Amino acid sequence: MANPGSAADFNTLLRRQSRSVSNALERLLTDQQMNRDLKAALKYTVGAPGKRVRSVLALWCCELVAGRINRDAEIASMAIEMVHTYSLIHDDLPAMDDDDMRRGRPTCHKAFDEATAILAGDALLTLAFEILAAKIEKPDISVRLIRQLAQDAGADGMIAGQVADLKAEKTAGTEEILEYIHVNKTAKMFRCAAAMGAICGRASQKQFDNLCKYGLNIGLAFQIADDILDETASSEQLGKTAGKDLKAAKCTYPAVVGIDKAQNIQRRLTSAAAAALEPFGPKADCLRQLATALLQRTK
Amino acid sequence: MANPGSAADFNTLLRRQSRSVSNALERLLTDQQMNRDLKAALKYTVGAPGKRVRSVLALWCCELVAGRINRDAEIASMAIEMVHTYSLIHDDLPAMDDDDMRRGRPTCHKAFDEATAILAGDALLTLAFEILAAKIEKPDISVRLIRQLAQDAGADGMIAGQVADLKAEKTAGTEEILEYIHVNKTAKMFRCAAAMGAICGRASQKQFDNLCKYGLNIGLAFQIADDILDETASSEQLGKTAGKDLKAAKCTYPAVVGIDKAQNIQRRLTSAAAAALEPFGPKADCLRQLATALLQRTK
Repeated sequence: MANPGSAADFNTLLRRQSRSVSNALERLLTDQQMNRDLKAALKYTVGAPGKRVRSVLALWCCELVAGRINRDAEIASMAIEMVHTYSLIHDDLPAMDDDDMRRGRPTCHKAFDEATAILAGDALLTLAFEILAAKIEKPDISVRLIRQLAQDAGADGMIAGQVADLKAEKTAGTEEILEYIHVNKTAKMFRCAAAMGAICGRASQKQFDNLCKYGLNIGLAFQIADDILDETASSEQLGKTAGKDLKAAKCTYPAVVGIDKAQNIQRRLTSAAAAALEPFGPKADCLRQLATALLQRTK
Repeated sequence: MANPGSAADFNTLLRRQSRSVSNALERLLTDQQMNRDLKAALKYTVGAPGKRVRSVLALWCCELVAGRINRDAEIASMAIEMVHTYSLIHDDLPAMDDDDMRRGRPTCHKAFDEATAILAGDALLTLAFEILAAKIEKPDISVRLIRQLAQDAGADGMIAGQVADLKAEKTAGTEEILEYIHVNKTAKMFRCAAAMGAICGRASQKQFDNLCKYGLNIGLAFQIADDILDETASSEQLGKTAGKDLKAAKCTYPAVVGIDKAQNIQRRLTSAAAAALEPFGPKADCLRQLATALLQRTK
């Protein structure tokens, strides 16, 4: 993996990589045989300008252990983005977080309607598993990827975090509940991305474990950054409604422990992520810079 | 496969088989590590007294080709029931069909709340893929099952039918639209069940094709029976609100072609299903009686 050099060079690299994920998703959705109305809704939501952080993470973890990004990792990166996007579509529904804007555009249920948004989310989740079953060459790799994704995105992963998040609203959150919510809701999908990249790159068990540790830690750090931004940034900056967490009395790090302590925790997590990358030496510089970029982002 | 004999014996056999599916699902959900609130919602919805027709279909198709119901078919039958139940949970939501009763109980969003119902549906869909990836012994069988399920339940299958169904409401339906809706919304999941059973039983390509044909035809016949019952049966009989399709101006067979023609189409489909079973000889008697039972059911 080439050392990206300066922060500016790294940002260019990141932008290029996420654009390539977006293009691959656009092509896949165009080619995929499906109901016309669903295709419009899927292209609208998946095509919105996202950072594709989870996808890039999967690609770079594969590159780190295999020396290159292979076709399996490209498929895995798309599956992760589909699952992430489905979770946003359902999260934004009126019965959930009730959000009108996402990635700088009207949310799916605003641009279409609620029923379409529910079904578009369902379709994206299903499609993620379909491409992992249909487009990964070796069945044993396919099965490992599907198991990882289903576990981290499911009832003991992302969805568990969403349920706990809704339940914690308007109650006095504790640090324990807070950690449960964010580990499950956000960090496990980062871990999942790293794990899937590692699987595609045929990582050793030790490499796999280290990349999972890296993914989980930067995932939690990312969520804390998100919570802090929700309080301090403008809606225009974020491309979604700012200050919503505070208004909804969400259980966030700034709300429960205060901004200063939240930033301390964030730094501790970033150090743990860096420690997990040590065995890889300078080859992991891209992933190191990714961690820094997630910590310092302004949107 | 034992010849069940009389209709009464067949009904006993069917009840026993569907009870065994219900018990297996109850055990699996009890053992599965997941968020406590989600587990309550999943047990509530999956535990409601359903007919488990799709699951039984998968089990009996495996038995027909393999001589016995194997462990893979048991897993597949549970995955199908999970996907079917998730689709009911989401279908019943206020933004979709807005139903208060299902299987004789308050629907998930009535017993819990809308957000929980959305997430419980998502969790069940994810869990279906998880158990196929984690609990099927051979990776190549696992991948084939997941691909089949994702295709038939996804954006070119069940979800396509749901989208078309919502779109067709309150418009003058044609027979073409009607067939598109019901083939996708219902028949493909019956075909999927038959296909998954065949895969688990290591069917030959010819056996597989015939069982798919059987499944698709009885699936469509089943949906027509459902539409007719919605017009002619009571809510008490159905365990869900009767007459809803008519009220919602749904695109149904009785509404578009009238009850007489709908019954003719149903008989034609049942004959086609029977023809697909011919090569199997008397061993397929259970599946023949299942087709008859679906046609003559009163709830």
